[in-house]
Amino acid sequence: MRNNPIGIFDSGIGGLTVVKEIIKTLPHESIIYIGDTARVPYGPRSKEVVTKFAMEMVTFLLRRKIKALVIACNTISGLSYDEIRDAVYPIITLGVIRPAVRLAIQTTKNKKIGIIGTEGTIKSQSYQKMFEFYNSDARIISSACPLFVPMAEEGLNNHKATKLIAQDYLKEFIKNKVDTLILGCTHYPLLYDAIQETVGKEMTLIDSAQPTAQMLKERLEDVNLLSDNPNPKHEFYVTDAPERVKKVAGRFFGEELNGKLKKVNLED
Amino acid sequence: MRNNPIGIFDSGIGGLTVVKEIIKTLPHESIIYIGDTARVPYGPRSKEVVTKFAMEMVTFLLRRKIKALVIACNTISGLSYDEIRDAVYPIITLGVIRPAVRLAIQTTKNKKIGIIGTEGTIKSQSYQKMFEFYNSDARIISSACPLFVPMAEEGLNNHKATKLIAQDYLKEFIKNKVDTLILGCTHYPLLYDAIQETVGKEMTLIDSAQPTAQMLKERLEDVNLLSDNPNPKHEFYVTDAPERVKKVAGRFFGEELNGKLKKVNLED
Repeated sequence: MRNNPIGIFDSGIGGLTVVKEIIKTLPHESIIYIGDTARVPYGPRSKEVVTKFAMEMVTFLLRRKIKALVIACNTISGLSYDEIRDAVYPIITLGVIRPAVRLAIQTTKNKKIGIIGTEGTIKSQSYQKMFEFYNSDARIISSACPLFVPMAEEGLNNHKATKLIAQDYLKEFIKNKVDTLILGCTHYPLLYDAIQETVGKEMTLIDSAQPTAQMLKERLEDVNLLSDNPNPKHEFYVTDAPERVKKVAGRFFGEELNGKLKKVNLED
Repeated sequence: MRNNPIGIFDSGIGGLTVVKEIIKTLPHESIIYIGDTARVPYGPRSKEVVTKFAMEMVTFLLRRKIKALVIACNTISGLSYDEIRDAVYPIITLGVIRPAVRLAIQTTKNKKIGIIGTEGTIKSQSYQKMFEFYNSDARIISSACPLFVPMAEEGLNNHKATKLIAQDYLKEFIKNKVDTLILGCTHYPLLYDAIQETVGKEMTLIDSAQPTAQMLKERLEDVNLLSDNPNPKHEFYVTDAPERVKKVAGRFFGEELNGKLKKVNLED
């Protein structure tokens, strides 16, 4: 069981930013990643559809005997976490929201925390509920940033248009003197520079990848399931793999994944 | 048969710009529209996946005894037209590419024509093939504009960021003195002003909605299937209908569709 893989899934390839951190933090773990690139993005979709699509990926991963499940997608974590956790129990399930919220609470000094994400994530109020879970008395301000996903995929971190859009999306956080801003979408780290430049250096940006990898390590240690496998395997699946996905995947993972991306059909 | 509905479908709600023109040109025709909002956008996906998703909508429409089928989506028209035409024969099938190309050939004076569209549309070279079908000797220049779809959906026709992005996407057309530009995506008419302002008044923009409605009228007349029904029905289906879809649908259709949008599950 200890050497069984960790299953990680996302609506697309943004979750590769989380995979990268998990490999860094847990270098002996085997990983199976699946991204639903045939139906990405999930951000604008309803809870019902997001849960249905997500459960198809969960089934795919369960068949491959995973020991833990990481929802590397804020939209799915926000809308479908409870359904997924209940369906895979007693396998460990971890979303990206709790780790980011825990770190934000540790980080803020003035107790003014901002959250940016897709429309689905922001509307679900899932971050707010997690702050309540931690009995936080911080003031929470949130804003949906729908254009950030396509801008990240197009690699426009340094484009003037991105900065103009960022100024629109982020002005409330500046006005309200938020000191900690959660990047509540796995795509947003690719716009890190544009976002940091817009909000100024005093605002700390929280990317969920690193705290999620850290919390996964804790959870595996809790049940004595950390692996020491010297030859872990990393597998990457997508539901559609046109040239564009291969190109953009490298941008998220930090290195080429070209030959490694395998295409699967979830309905088979 | 004559009073049977016309089936119109799209990857999402962009095709409503085509529906609007068809209702204007053919006010006695009943219409069934379906948009795959659960899996939109199709632009970045492979031909295989686009064809599979599109055939599910075609099946939905065939069950409702349509007399003609309009593919109100450039990506599907470009990648899957032949498969769809063959599958529904002898029912009339019409895409949006041929009508736009025919009008562009009639419009251009200097025989320099530009095409903008999604990555899928541009990569498929489907417009170029249609110009060959018409034995056109015009010089064709094309460019993918991936950010235009989300910008149109966000209603950013007058945002500075849209103009900056438009300047990047459209500079080749200006440099090459193109006199006719095909808006090869049903979303782009929503950015008409931003595009026209960027390329200047001398460049004529071709939106496929009006020529598609006109060609549909010809095709129905060819086989004596034009209806004179005084009480035609207009039905609108989507595969996912969160609040956002309802809001944006009105933007494309030109009037509220709130109560009229029905949700269906294609896999049922």
